[in-house]
Amino acid sequence: MSRLRFAISMTLDGYIAGPNQSLEHPVGSGAEPLHDWMFNLRTFREIHNMEGGETGINEDVLRENFTNIGATIMGRNMFGGGPGPWSSEPWDGWWGDNPPFHTPVFVLTHHAREPLEMKGGTTFHFVTDGIESALRQAKKAAGDQDVALGGGANVAQQYLAAGLIDEMELHVVPVILGAGERLLDNVGSDLKLEPVRTIEGPGVTHLKYRIVR
Amino acid sequence: MSRLRFAISMTLDGYIAGPNQSLEHPVGSGAEPLHDWMFNLRTFREIHNMEGGETGINEDVLRENFTNIGATIMGRNMFGGGPGPWSSEPWDGWWGDNPPFHTPVFVLTHHAREPLEMKGGTTFHFVTDGIESALRQAKKAAGDQDVALGGGANVAQQYLAAGLIDEMELHVVPVILGAGERLLDNVGSDLKLEPVRTIEGPGVTHLKYRIVR
Repeated sequence: MSRLRFAISMTLDGYIAGPNQSLEHPVGSGAEPLHDWMFNLRTFREIHNMEGGETGINEDVLRENFTNIGATIMGRNMFGGGPGPWSSEPWDGWWGDNPPFHTPVFVLTHHAREPLEMKGGTTFHFVTDGIESALRQAKKAAGDQDVALGGGANVAQQYLAAGLIDEMELHVVPVILGAGERLLDNVGSDLKLEPVRTIEGPGVTHLKYRIVR
Repeated sequence: MSRLRFAISMTLDGYIAGPNQSLEHPVGSGAEPLHDWMFNLRTFREIHNMEGGETGINEDVLRENFTNIGATIMGRNMFGGGPGPWSSEPWDGWWGDNPPFHTPVFVLTHHAREPLEMKGGTTFHFVTDGIESALRQAKKAAGDQDVALGGGANVAQQYLAAGLIDEMELHVVPVILGAGERLLDNVGSDLKLEPVRTIEGPGVTHLKYRIVR
């Protein structure tokens, strides 16, 4: 049974991106420490087509996030180049010609567009008929494997509020950001979370929850 | 060297109390699950002058919170009976005649009042000249022991923003509340936190940080 899994780095005060996101600062001002814990890890380097990298607790956790994933869902803001209609020379994502997903990626948008095939197994499909449709398409594409939910906050909140996420892992970094995009706003208070496990890694604490319907 | 230590239960979305706090619901609507993990523990029962109680991981963590504490600081909202001037039959706290602090307690308020001596070692002192004065008085009263900061959110935020807390332990419960009093708002982004340890207990994850100046 294919599950929807969501893993994301979050500050202790609940932010997954800083304020003033832009082309130059895709995660917003002051938010670089969100992802410091992963940049040198083997899995991070591997999905970005680099060799080497560190092993250890954090690598084990990150590796697991990318294991058994057959499709990915993300919002238009995470894909970038927005908001609004696609231009005549449309944006092809932040990640160059070989993006780190290596699966079909379903991008939620209000603006239709033909699928965009990249190198390394990533093909972006643009979904205009909502989160449930994107999930259906992603699960079909994933087959027996799971679906990974990317971000950003808005799309994650929609999936959380709809009770569609099966497992959530928060990589909590010891930073107070004070402003930006908060993950767990606008999701109501009906979610039933069951702790699965807590892992303390260098500079980050990994909290994994099962979401029960 | 006496330190200021702060330990509090927090939902995964960062709330330490629900909305609509009142005399009948001192922690606000829907916030009861914040403290479920501690009610049956030996230390909780002991400070409330009851015998027995559970032992285990959560008990060890809670016990530590109350060890080597020589004074306590809290805000007027946590003390209760407010806001505004004291009435002719003033409020004596939520906790009956033998409160669970068993130390001098310094209550931050805008309204002067004589000290209030209770049973069991708790004497409430009402401090009208600000958080630094309260901390000085509490450290003097604590002697070689540490000072515990109670709450609520507003006072905790003031101490965090001022960089006066040395150690913070968040008891994170797997609940999304969606509204209420958030702990880590209004504290800026200058705090440097160092993870001390993470402990996973039944139904709650304990995240302890050192705050570095």
